[in-house]
Amino acid sequence: MNGQYSSTLLEKAVNEFAKLPGVGRKTAMRFVLHLLRQDQPTVEAFGNAIVTLKREVKYCRVCHNISDTDICQICSHPQRDASTICVVENIRDVMAVEATQQYKGLYHVLGGVISPMDGIGPSDLQIESLVNRVKEGGIQEVILALSTTMEGDTTGFYICRKLEGYDVKLSFIARGISVGDELEYADEITLGRSIVNRTPYIKNNEM
Amino acid sequence: MNGQYSSTLLEKAVNEFAKLPGVGRKTAMRFVLHLLRQDQPTVEAFGNAIVTLKREVKYCRVCHNISDTDICQICSHPQRDASTICVVENIRDVMAVEATQQYKGLYHVLGGVISPMDGIGPSDLQIESLVNRVKEGGIQEVILALSTTMEGDTTGFYICRKLEGYDVKLSFIARGISVGDELEYADEITLGRSIVNRTPYIKNNEM
Repeated sequence: MNGQYSSTLLEKAVNEFAKLPGVGRKTAMRFVLHLLRQDQPTVEAFGNAIVTLKREVKYCRVCHNISDTDICQICSHPQRDASTICVVENIRDVMAVEATQQYKGLYHVLGGVISPMDGIGPSDLQIESLVNRVKEGGIQEVILALSTTMEGDTTGFYICRKLEGYDVKLSFIARGISVGDELEYADEITLGRSIVNRTPYIKNNEM
Repeated sequence: MNGQYSSTLLEKAVNEFAKLPGVGRKTAMRFVLHLLRQDQPTVEAFGNAIVTLKREVKYCRVCHNISDTDICQICSHPQRDASTICVVENIRDVMAVEATQQYKGLYHVLGGVISPMDGIGPSDLQIESLVNRVKEGGIQEVILALSTTMEGDTTGFYICRKLEGYDVKLSFIARGISVGDELEYADEITLGRSIVNRTPYIKNNEM
């Protein structure tokens, strides 16, 4: 036998699935055998969905979110607050913020964070176009909703430096103890920050 | 927005991936975004691998293992012991037994186990063709290597009943304490069986 697979077609399919993040050869094999048990049209639909997406995907001209149209549904929505931009790393973060239902402004998807280790510099990200959006005017606040990693922080401060000269409020999303977390298990840096950035008690107002 | 996705193409692709066993919408999203970051040929290769497999897959005429040829490489291998058949549930089990490098006979892939709950009866499995292989002669032993579940046991005993009339040795793979397991954590049934089916000490021989 050529290696452990009884069929080269099978081996090829398993190899492709094993390239997915977090998928090993055993899981890939499970996926392939699952699909083999489905009928032909189901498998074709699966294969076509991803190829079609790759071929026809569009990114919003304004915020670079994935979109079916030239300008995405958020950017073109008349009820959204066009004076606020929430800067995020990727479209998954757009979905995460949307899911909170706490934000009614627009987004700006960077497409990553500055990471010299991975060879990603500011010019590889959508920072220039963010500066242009601010330059065009009408933006009152830019909220930086980036990961609290070194890369996220670096990117956030880089953007702040770039936008310092413009009449726009810059803010970072709050960092502190997660809802439901116990104090004794929080790390010192997070706990320290949450004391420094404590929120005052306001009568008749939810925290 | 239509639901949480900013693009229907994206939603479609995520839905397809979320149908895979053990994959939720978050993981599916990760897979899709990973593939979106690859270039067009890579994504096409991924999509085609599974469609091509489904379209062109062959099953060995003798043992029903997945194969590129009419008769698989194991069944047609001149060095393998054609007098022994190891009966397994699916091709993953063939690979598991092959990986042990302890077995040099042939296989017979049932394609499942008898499971009335799932509507799978003996006629849905490759049991008839196993009986025919024995009937044709030349087989000295049939080893039942099925899961130690109720369905696996049922299937094993059903096959034994079917083959009782033929001059063939029937055996089940050994059940007992796994190598590396501690006795105190073994369940009573397994431990009980491993005492009943204890293996005698043989001088100058590995256990």
